[in-house]
Amino acid sequence: MNKYFEQLMKRIDKVMAFQAALTLFEWDAETLAPEESMTYTSKTIGILSNEYFTNLINDDVKKLIQKLSEEKEQKDLNFNQKAIVKDIKKSFKEMEHIPPAEYQAYSELTAKASGIWSKARQKKCFTDYSPTLEEIIYYLKKFAGYRGRKDKKPYDILLDDFEEGFNMEKLDEFFNKIKDAVISLLKEVAGKKDFVDKSYNYLHYDIDKQKEFCKYVSGYVGFDFNKGVIAESAHPFTTNIHNHDVRITNHFHENNLESAIFSIIHESGHGIYEMHIDDAITQTPVGTGTSMGMHESQSRFFENIIGRSKAFWTPLFPKLKETFPDQLKDITLDHFIKGINKAAPGLIRTEADELSYSLHIMIRYEIEKIIFEDEIKTEDLPEIWNEKYKEYLGIEPKDDGEGILQDIHWAGGSFGYFPSYAIGSAIAAQIYYHMKEIMPLEEYLTEGNLTPIREYLNTHIHKYGKTKNTNELLKEMMDEELNADYYVKYLTEKYKKLYDLN
Amino acid sequence: MNKYFEQLMKRIDKVMAFQAALTLFEWDAETLAPEESMTYTSKTIGILSNEYFTNLINDDVKKLIQKLSEEKEQKDLNFNQKAIVKDIKKSFKEMEHIPPAEYQAYSELTAKASGIWSKARQKKCFTDYSPTLEEIIYYLKKFAGYRGRKDKKPYDILLDDFEEGFNMEKLDEFFNKIKDAVISLLKEVAGKKDFVDKSYNYLHYDIDKQKEFCKYVSGYVGFDFNKGVIAESAHPFTTNIHNHDVRITNHFHENNLESAIFSIIHESGHGIYEMHIDDAITQTPVGTGTSMGMHESQSRFFENIIGRSKAFWTPLFPKLKETFPDQLKDITLDHFIKGINKAAPGLIRTEADELSYSLHIMIRYEIEKIIFEDEIKTEDLPEIWNEKYKEYLGIEPKDDGEGILQDIHWAGGSFGYFPSYAIGSAIAAQIYYHMKEIMPLEEYLTEGNLTPIREYLNTHIHKYGKTKNTNELLKEMMDEELNADYYVKYLTEKYKKLYDLN
Repeated sequence: MNKYFEQLMKRIDKVMAFQAALTLFEWDAETLAPEESMTYTSKTIGILSNEYFTNLINDDVKKLIQKLSEEKEQKDLNFNQKAIVKDIKKSFKEMEHIPPAEYQAYSELTAKASGIWSKARQKKCFTDYSPTLEEIIYYLKKFAGYRGRKDKKPYDILLDDFEEGFNMEKLDEFFNKIKDAVISLLKEVAGKKDFVDKSYNYLHYDIDKQKEFCKYVSGYVGFDFNKGVIAESAHPFTTNIHNHDVRITNHFHENNLESAIFSIIHESGHGIYEMHIDDAITQTPVGTGTSMGMHESQSRFFENIIGRSKAFWTPLFPKLKETFPDQLKDITLDHFIKGINKAAPGLIRTEADELSYSLHIMIRYEIEKIIFEDEIKTEDLPEIWNEKYKEYLGIEPKDDGEGILQDIHWAGGSFGYFPSYAIGSAIAAQIYYHMKEIMPLEEYLTEGNLTPIREYLNTHIHKYGKTKNTNELLKEMMDEELNADYYVKYLTEKYKKLYDLN
Repeated sequence: MNKYFEQLMKRIDKVMAFQAALTLFEWDAETLAPEESMTYTSKTIGILSNEYFTNLINDDVKKLIQKLSEEKEQKDLNFNQKAIVKDIKKSFKEMEHIPPAEYQAYSELTAKASGIWSKARQKKCFTDYSPTLEEIIYYLKKFAGYRGRKDKKPYDILLDDFEEGFNMEKLDEFFNKIKDAVISLLKEVAGKKDFVDKSYNYLHYDIDKQKEFCKYVSGYVGFDFNKGVIAESAHPFTTNIHNHDVRITNHFHENNLESAIFSIIHESGHGIYEMHIDDAITQTPVGTGTSMGMHESQSRFFENIIGRSKAFWTPLFPKLKETFPDQLKDITLDHFIKGINKAAPGLIRTEADELSYSLHIMIRYEIEKIIFEDEIKTEDLPEIWNEKYKEYLGIEPKDDGEGILQDIHWAGGSFGYFPSYAIGSAIAAQIYYHMKEIMPLEEYLTEGNLTPIREYLNTHIHKYGKTKNTNELLKEMMDEELNADYYVKYLTEKYKKLYDLN
């Protein structure tokens, strides 16, 4: 092994160990830790974050990166090693001007924030959360400033963190394309009031039975319980310690059948991605999904593109009926497919149908732009939120709980993340059209044989981790970079057919 | 604050953060982590252990300890600070001669070992576990050697780790005292074959209902769910991240009512101890129970001394009957009290009655002595184990699963720990006689008012953490150091009365 690379990895191994510990603390806080724990645990998290930071950002690492960027040393590195050096270099540039003490303070702040958010959400009271959110925004603006790219706007810097190469200009174009199509489809769909009677979905569904079925579905789509676990949390999410320890969560509602099922398929999609990162790169900086957008493409491919199709449910629906024989006795497969695809504007993003989902994202994207590019008081955000919901979806939250407090993301400092959801949907649609061409996708689903589908994704996306970026992966797969037209095409074809529109 | 102390604490804060992370990984491995995770997580644990080690054992810390040991600086320290310096000094002496690379390798080994032990136990196959155990013993002997106390035998060094001031000489005396009394009582008891029909205990008990009742009992004795959680693991245990995050586990058997109930009371006793460590010392090296023996005294005080008494169950038994009305319909309180106190030699330590329990400990103590003081092949240990069970308890395991593989301790490198269980029982008995003198203990229990009992323990033991050692605490409480006579008296009085012996 190249001696400089070896020296670098000795330091990076430490950085990755601190990151793993931080990931575990975060997972633990969301799923299990006692209510009062964070008062003290935040100190531990602050220290570990500081160790993470100072072991990554220091002169030794800087010199090693410089050395390893030289042509002579580059020649000595294999493909994965080059990618690792490139990724560390990027992180280094992002973080090198942030004072360690501020990074530690920010880490302690976000560690506490999710608890504060969670309580405020329960109380439906934005005011309780507003000062914390304001402090997080303050730090993020400050950090973006340190990153010293005068040619780049703060929000563009954040967007690039989540999806390399993306900025407001590209996203405005992207969303404009989708917006017109979605709004026009939603209007047409709104005319079909008798599309489906979905009352069956809101009957009483025993939670233990839901859990059992969800676990079954998770395994059915390919989540491997030797390398992964499911727990519960307020907001379903996926995380991973490495490729042999991938964790997803779910949440359950007694009076909603689909919520938990589609959450678990979604998170399983994320989980399957992380489980198939190559062993050679796990526990390195490139040993994770290449971007949030690509990650969301995988979760959404499973959740929506295949997970809401008739072919997918053909072998599965009998099992669901068996699990809930009384509630589903009069429901046919066709009825169920209509039910799970019914489009109707709602207030909660995670419960949104596939069609109106992008509008939820667009609202968040526009608000984040305002936060970072305009002068705005944090306390005014709920009003802006509510106005946008009225404008785009024609409905207004009755309180902050079903409004601005519904998402955990901002509490974790994840600004610039939301657009990944829409990008992910677009990538998923693009992959779908490609896969339909090269394999009998529907036949596989109808047979309940998901292996070739999953293996294709494993081989062409998952295993590479971050060694290839989104557009590189897409280009190698189908000789074309991300193209939102597929998503528009997909939504149009799907909803025209489903709703029998002309 | 003294400037040297401040400098020291800056370093120790880091050490404590690494320890907290390691504790969380260990907890997670026992309760949740997927089966294959440890293959890779052990690397992370190795690195964090190394950080723990090198941040504690280095010249800076050494110099600061030296400085802070000087009379002038000592005068400048308050009580807690002095205790912290003293404790760090002790740890430093224990570890300073161990090479960091060996410490890291050992930490990775023990991280993997519990998974190997667990699988071997399932397969009831000691051979699968033997090489790992041998390696652990090899390291421990080596480490004891490094500690360079030529006047001290290796096993004495390990014993002192768990209970300051204890060695084989003292323990031999301690166990001899107990052994005679226990063996003679067990013989008398064995004559009373019709003492109680305990078949009710082995009926079918719904696990969800057991969980609900156990959670209730845990809260009843004082475990605070704002600062603590219960999870499940193969082997019940307690751990803590700090005093506001204390975690206990339980295990459930469909055909055994008492097992889970007394496990949870036991672990709650440990948990209550950790929850009441003073805020001023939590997250410092003295912010935990003063010794394993004192810890076990608290768990056993709750589990056995009060938890198996008629007074304790007087207000609780109706609730238990309500939870399991069919199974317990013919069982009176007196019948139940006899049932939970029935003494009969068994093979499993954690299921043992209070009387024969010490014999299980004695067997482990004697085997550990052999391991560290004699030349013995690890592969011969099961035979020695089985012989000792035959000798002391008159019964022999039919396989290693109910023999030498039953305990997790050795897999974690905890040799010298087992005697703490017996010491703990002795301390508990001593505290019991003291408390009976100063408060209406039985009355409180009958009224279901555990607060004054718990508060007394909080104020006289728990809050001090490790700032006072076992004998100091006992002496301040009752003007007498540990005295095993109380334990012999307690067992004799209790079993004579219960079994109506003369």
